[in-house]
Amino acid sequence: MTQPQKHTWKTKLHEVIYEADTPAGKSFDVVLLILIFLSIVLVMLESVAPLQAEYGDYFYLGEWIITIFFTVEYILRVISIKKPSSYIFSFYGLIDLISTIPLYLSFFIVGTNALLTIRALRLLRVFRILKVTRYIGEGNKLAKALKDSRPKILVFLFAVMILSVIAGTLMYIVEGPEHGFKSIPVSVYWCIVTLTTVGFGDIAPVTALGQFIATVIMVMGYGIIAVPTGIVSAEMAKGGQPEPEPNKLHLNTQVCHNCGAKKHQDHAKYCHNCGNSLHYE
Amino acid sequence: MTQPQKHTWKTKLHEVIYEADTPAGKSFDVVLLILIFLSIVLVMLESVAPLQAEYGDYFYLGEWIITIFFTVEYILRVISIKKPSSYIFSFYGLIDLISTIPLYLSFFIVGTNALLTIRALRLLRVFRILKVTRYIGEGNKLAKALKDSRPKILVFLFAVMILSVIAGTLMYIVEGPEHGFKSIPVSVYWCIVTLTTVGFGDIAPVTALGQFIATVIMVMGYGIIAVPTGIVSAEMAKGGQPEPEPNKLHLNTQVCHNCGAKKHQDHAKYCHNCGNSLHYE
Amino acid sequence: MTQPQKHTWKTKLHEVIYEADTPAGKSFDVVLLILIFLSIVLVMLESVAPLQAEYGDYFYLGEWIITIFFTVEYILRVISIKKPSSYIFSFYGLIDLISTIPLYLSFFIVGTNALLTIRALRLLRVFRILKVTRYIGEGNKLAKALKDSRPKILVFLFAVMILSVIAGTLMYIVEGPEHGFKSIPVSVYWCIVTLTTVGFGDIAPVTALGQFIATVIMVMGYGIIAVPTGIVSAEMAKGGQPEPEPNKLHLNTQVCHNCGAKKHQDHAKYCHNCGNSLHYE
Amino acid sequence: MTQPQKHTWKTKLHEVIYEADTPAGKSFDVVLLILIFLSIVLVMLESVAPLQAEYGDYFYLGEWIITIFFTVEYILRVISIKKPSSYIFSFYGLIDLISTIPLYLSFFIVGTNALLTIRALRLLRVFRILKVTRYIGEGNKLAKALKDSRPKILVFLFAVMILSVIAGTLMYIVEGPEHGFKSIPVSVYWCIVTLTTVGFGDIAPVTALGQFIATVIMVMGYGIIAVPTGIVSAEMAKGGQPEPEPNKLHLNTQVCHNCGAKKHQDHAKYCHNCGNSLHYE
Repeated sequence: MTQPQKHTWKTKLHEVIYEADTPAGKSFDVVLLILIFLSIVLVMLESVAPLQAEYGDYFYLGEWIITIFFTVEYILRVISIKKPSSYIFSFYGLIDLISTIPLYLSFFIVGTNALLTIRALRLLRVFRILKVTRYIGEGNKLAKALKDSRPKILVFLFAVMILSVIAGTLMYIVEGPEHGFKSIPVSVYWCIVTLTTVGFGDIAPVTALGQFIATVIMVMGYGIIAVPTGIVSAEMAKGGQPEPEPNKLHLNTQVCHNCGAKKHQDHAKYCHNCGNSLHYE
Repeated sequence: MTQPQKHTWKTKLHEVIYEADTPAGKSFDVVLLILIFLSIVLVMLESVAPLQAEYGDYFYLGEWIITIFFTVEYILRVISIKKPSSYIFSFYGLIDLISTIPLYLSFFIVGTNALLTIRALRLLRVFRILKVTRYIGEGNKLAKALKDSRPKILVFLFAVMILSVIAGTLMYIVEGPEHGFKSIPVSVYWCIVTLTTVGFGDIAPVTALGQFIATVIMVMGYGIIAVPTGIVSAEMAKGGQPEPEPNKLHLNTQVCHNCGAKKHQDHAKYCHNCGNSLHYE
Repeated sequence: MTQPQKHTWKTKLHEVIYEADTPAGKSFDVVLLILIFLSIVLVMLESVAPLQAEYGDYFYLGEWIITIFFTVEYILRVISIKKPSSYIFSFYGLIDLISTIPLYLSFFIVGTNALLTIRALRLLRVFRILKVTRYIGEGNKLAKALKDSRPKILVFLFAVMILSVIAGTLMYIVEGPEHGFKSIPVSVYWCIVTLTTVGFGDIAPVTALGQFIATVIMVMGYGIIAVPTGIVSAEMAKGGQPEPEPNKLHLNTQVCHNCGAKKHQDHAKYCHNCGNSLHYE
Repeated sequence: MTQPQKHTWKTKLHEVIYEADTPAGKSFDVVLLILIFLSIVLVMLESVAPLQAEYGDYFYLGEWIITIFFTVEYILRVISIKKPSSYIFSFYGLIDLISTIPLYLSFFIVGTNALLTIRALRLLRVFRILKVTRYIGEGNKLAKALKDSRPKILVFLFAVMILSVIAGTLMYIVEGPEHGFKSIPVSVYWCIVTLTTVGFGDIAPVTALGQFIATVIMVMGYGIIAVPTGIVSAEMAKGGQPEPEPNKLHLNTQVCHNCGAKKHQDHAKYCHNCGNSLHYE
């Protein structure tokens, strides 16, 4: 049994930022969620030309405030963990970095295409939305059913691709560039638009033969839309059967501040990964 | 055992309006359903400009007749129940009020935008259609299956939102305002139109890269349309298993005229909620 | 035990026309199917203006040949059955009549709108396609699953209607006649086009608020498309369970020429309905 | 026990080309897959007019290189098998031939329409994509579920056809050629576009009655899309039940070089079809 760690500001910070078991930790998460949401709304509104023209300055100000907050958050996350590299190179660490730096990068880019590049870079901030996935329970049945049916879905998608390439080539021959099917890639695009029952209508067959082939493609699409649905339904139905669920133990949001391991049980005293104490006294 | 209530006009009215076990109660419901239907048809026809120009006066007359009926019905509902507030502030009480008053309100609104406001207000009458939900059996398997799958569907919708925001931003960068993707919100709108396989075609990608990304979005949409279907199917299949159904007892349409509680059993003598007698002698 | 009937030309005709157990009966059915198919193709081709202009005379000739055949078939069907009324007023009897007479009726119609009326009447021949349903096995699992899920599907469709009326009115207020939503019925039509994920794109929202509401409608449509699918899937899955199937007895295509009853067992000697002998000696 | 065959260059070649158990066999398959992929990309890019104008010569060169490789592969496949006819007239043998010869044929075609014919012929090379199906596991559950539900799906498609013909004729009468429904075949095409929820929008009803009928068709389409999904789901769910799977024996990719039979067990010494030895010593 190792000596419980001292409750330094670092371990306390770790608890607030990485966990949601304490009131402070919960408040931190709520503030973060609100800021992510505001940040996404801001990125979206900036792209609306009339709004940007009128309120551009406020948007810029708001963006700086949010960026500074996220910068502070990023730094705190790095210093409050014992092995910073385990955070920095994790999925969320990279997302946090990518979604924070665009505004800073805009200072270093000069030249002719500067404005355009900055504009594109700033849109990277939209990836902040991925930070929200932290709050969606992982490992739930939904993901499991999807994962279990992946091989079948891949085979299915492959079959759809083969069908689309052949049908697309056929439509290119039948309709030709004069009716919008201007190349095979475009025809294949149209085929997928039709097979998936999206049907934009930007390209549509006009010859009798083309419309007949389109009918066959649509009815096939109608028939095969049943396949992925059937696959997932069957997986879900299986998932719905009573099964011994040892993972129904309540897992809290504590994160080991030594190795970053997650999913500790409520009464766990030591990290299940590195054996470090989870209690801060 | 409390003394059975006297069969006053009030209790009789309560029986006719709130219940459907007596011939009078059934007739009342049929008349009400027909009037709701006529009322909705009227609101719809009024919005058709040529019809309004020609038959406007008849529509106005018909609307007044229906409004007066609904006013009388509302007043009778209020006075025939012992605790009027339990009706007035119930879901149906509010719907009844909202769908009845627009025509009266049109007298009190004067000024420049009066006509426009009145027009919008009168459309509120369309909410009368919600009164019909009274006649759809509640608590059936359908609603239960939907309710049980709600958490999974919410997680799923959340994933769709995240995907749409990122894909929408991507399409905005790739296609840009010159091809109809004039801002990120519009691109996100297009993304949802595509993911849900609706595909209006008012906006459609024209660049090769844009069409390729659209293809990926569509095939993903095709794949993930399976998810909510699978969820509900699995829930329904579960619901289809033989299970002890204690709620298969026949519940009649009697409503306690004291507290407004519903779902009494056929042989119930007293309200299961307030103990008041249900028999009127 | 009644005396077996004599094998008159009438009973022989009955066997050929109404049954498919003898070589002659099978040949008759094949010829009939081919003629129905040719007849439908003819109706379709006649509607194509350029083809009608060039080959109109041949189409007219072909139509007369087919009509005469169907007339003869109709007369034979009537005279070869003991109770003609049981055929004449049956579903197929009416279809046979409706799809045969249009050409004859064209002689009796004179006047200003004669040509138009005749043209519309002749299209009635398309109903001949319903005669094909004779050859689709009745009482199969598909129809049963659909029938069993009908009450649930009706409740569901009702909910879709209520939703469409309210959402349609909302879109009418938000978008208004200037953006194509020219009346509430048209808006409701658009709503159903969107909810069912058809998405023609002839009408599409252009205001930001309208597009937002459209997004909500689409996501709801995406969610509720799962409901009918789930219902039918669950019913089908139930149908897939092993169950004692007493109706797996082979039923042949013999038809009692006395009362017209169908579905006799292979070894049946007497009509299960009227007790008349099925054997012709 | 027959004498094991000598390991001649022919049997070795057979092992490399037809099997994937040896390193050489695996490498051959990988190279083949890459070349098929490149070949398809080339066919597609050639159809893009601007790319063809600029890089046409490189495309032509690349096409010759690939064609020569496939020619060599075809010849080797023919000479390394004992009964060449069993390969030449097999599905893959025909695909291999059809997708290889177009470039050679272009030498023998002269005259006025030569260029057009050659262009169409060269597109035949797209069928090379079917060669990839060699690498998709056959006999998996997916194909089985589809195969098992085929009779039900056929009945269903038949019902869709009948519905489309009748509804198409109806729309032709109601909307008429002036609103895009220029003939019954076109109206039937529109009906299938609508029923399958594709909804291009190239043709859309404009009259009130036409829109009402369209609504009914759409809601029906919405209802019946559930049917094929339900069928496949039910079949898949059945397939998901634990069942004794004798075909779970590992079958390797060895192919008998005598008779071409496939699916030998790992420890098989003799072809299960012709008894020829599978071991080459």
